[in-house]
Amino acid sequence: MVKKALITGGAGFIGSHLAARLLDEGYEVTVLDNLFTGTKSNIYGMLENPRFTFMLHDVTQPFWGQFDEIYNLACPASPIHYQRNPVETIRTSFMGVMNVLELALKTKARVLHTSTSEIYGDPAVHPQPETYWGNVNTIGIRSCYDEGKRAAETLCADYYREYGVDIRMVRIFNTYGPHMHPQDGRVITNFIMQALGNRDITLYGDGSQTRSFQYVDDLINAIRAYMQLDHEKVSAFFESKGIPVPVLNIGNPGEYTIKQLAEETLRQIPESTSKLVCEPLPKDDPKRRKPDITLATELLGWKPVVPLQEGLKKTIAYFK
Amino acid sequence: MVKKALITGGAGFIGSHLAARLLDEGYEVTVLDNLFTGTKSNIYGMLENPRFTFMLHDVTQPFWGQFDEIYNLACPASPIHYQRNPVETIRTSFMGVMNVLELALKTKARVLHTSTSEIYGDPAVHPQPETYWGNVNTIGIRSCYDEGKRAAETLCADYYREYGVDIRMVRIFNTYGPHMHPQDGRVITNFIMQALGNRDITLYGDGSQTRSFQYVDDLINAIRAYMQLDHEKVSAFFESKGIPVPVLNIGNPGEYTIKQLAEETLRQIPESTSKLVCEPLPKDDPKRRKPDITLATELLGWKPVVPLQEGLKKTIAYFK
Repeated sequence: MVKKALITGGAGFIGSHLAARLLDEGYEVTVLDNLFTGTKSNIYGMLENPRFTFMLHDVTQPFWGQFDEIYNLACPASPIHYQRNPVETIRTSFMGVMNVLELALKTKARVLHTSTSEIYGDPAVHPQPETYWGNVNTIGIRSCYDEGKRAAETLCADYYREYGVDIRMVRIFNTYGPHMHPQDGRVITNFIMQALGNRDITLYGDGSQTRSFQYVDDLINAIRAYMQLDHEKVSAFFESKGIPVPVLNIGNPGEYTIKQLAEETLRQIPESTSKLVCEPLPKDDPKRRKPDITLATELLGWKPVVPLQEGLKKTIAYFK
Repeated sequence: MVKKALITGGAGFIGSHLAARLLDEGYEVTVLDNLFTGTKSNIYGMLENPRFTFMLHDVTQPFWGQFDEIYNLACPASPIHYQRNPVETIRTSFMGVMNVLELALKTKARVLHTSTSEIYGDPAVHPQPETYWGNVNTIGIRSCYDEGKRAAETLCADYYREYGVDIRMVRIFNTYGPHMHPQDGRVITNFIMQALGNRDITLYGDGSQTRSFQYVDDLINAIRAYMQLDHEKVSAFFESKGIPVPVLNIGNPGEYTIKQLAEETLRQIPESTSKLVCEPLPKDDPKRRKPDITLATELLGWKPVVPLQEGLKKTIAYFK
């Protein structure tokens, strides 16, 4: 029988890649999106596929459907978007996962919830394992996203523990690739857009802060491997690790400084006349983050395989 | 004109003390409570007061009314209560404050939101100033309360910043007194009930963990002083401290070990035949917490004045 999947936020950057992958694998795919940051152009190629359905809906309002798997990706994820309406951001994070979990409870669907490395905040531990509790400000300008995603994890943990919902969480570290929103304000899109437009490339601070950059295909591989495992295998694995709920860091541990990223971007766009300039660091900007992916490697046999050079090349080609 | 106040959770331990105080001050008081952990007995003495109204309602459902001041105290606050239904706990915290903030936004009411020292989790900084970000597990068994209260602070911060709602937060540290729920599982009620029942007094761990204990009258004094200040004065004060949103620690910095508390309880109930026994520490139990109340003292001219001996005496008299 054909498997049915629902992807909330499926017209967004990561959601649209996941939708394409699930269609390739033979799934019936329903994409639920309010098109606040997702776009129709991300899913144009799928609209005529008879196994694809688009549902214009806001995840904060209840919805219904019988699915085998639900992938919860709905939430504005870039500061420039989520700070535009902070109350709506935290509400989307909280009410969205609540609606997903209620539906999963009633229909016995398996759930993949996408959390984020932002729940680690400005980490005091480096790299971050899943057991690290994080260092997050409750009342800062980034809090609507960070605390919303933290509370969403808590809801997932409680539905897993109290009601036995078959839930798996991933904490996604910086991910890039085609379908990123060109105005999402993230460093990779900023640099590519600036370089292509021959505008100055903006480093915040001195550019020495490091980030890990994961190409989107690596993330999708991890998510799919994770969702194919039996419930028993998953819960036994996390229990053996003393972690109460399935949660995996998914990211690329290769560390680059922001400055290195800027230089590599310029190297790949040799025609650009852009120069590097420095600006002050924004408030609460996390200084350093790198995933410890030991658990993901052990459970999924997974590792990121796309080098930054190659991923950047494909991303630049998309933006061109 | 008579001022009107709404107290969510007004039939609970702290809420009922606040209701009595506001009636004394001449307010019209409406208590909203679902009586999940609050009890009618806490408000019996007020029911016939013409300035008092009881509203049986759950704070997670929208409500309406024109009030000058809203005090948001609705949320099960003791682990034994909030872990009974973790999903409901985090939902109450989040949806409750959301409903309060929406009402305040529409009616221009001033809001006092009660947060908690639990948002500091297992603190790495001692004592805790308001600028400390906390150390909290997102997926543990206490998370439904801790993360629910953290997300509630974030909502308050965003309504303050985005919509200009006149909101003041307090982070309440351990508070005790008459009207505590005898089965709330907290250390002071446990010890008094055990001592009065001549049962063993249970210390978790070796009893060397410290707590600060604030008598409820001290807390009510702080809350009332805080709510009487002008909006401009409050916001200017926090701005001058580099804190983006009004939030004050309210607690008694006097530190006692749990063992000292047990011994003082027994000293005050000399007829008790109870003995001290030790049991293992529960998961994620915070080890040490003590408020830094510098800001509250500076802004409110407030300090806790009731010594533990005296507060315990009144509390024991109530339980007898």
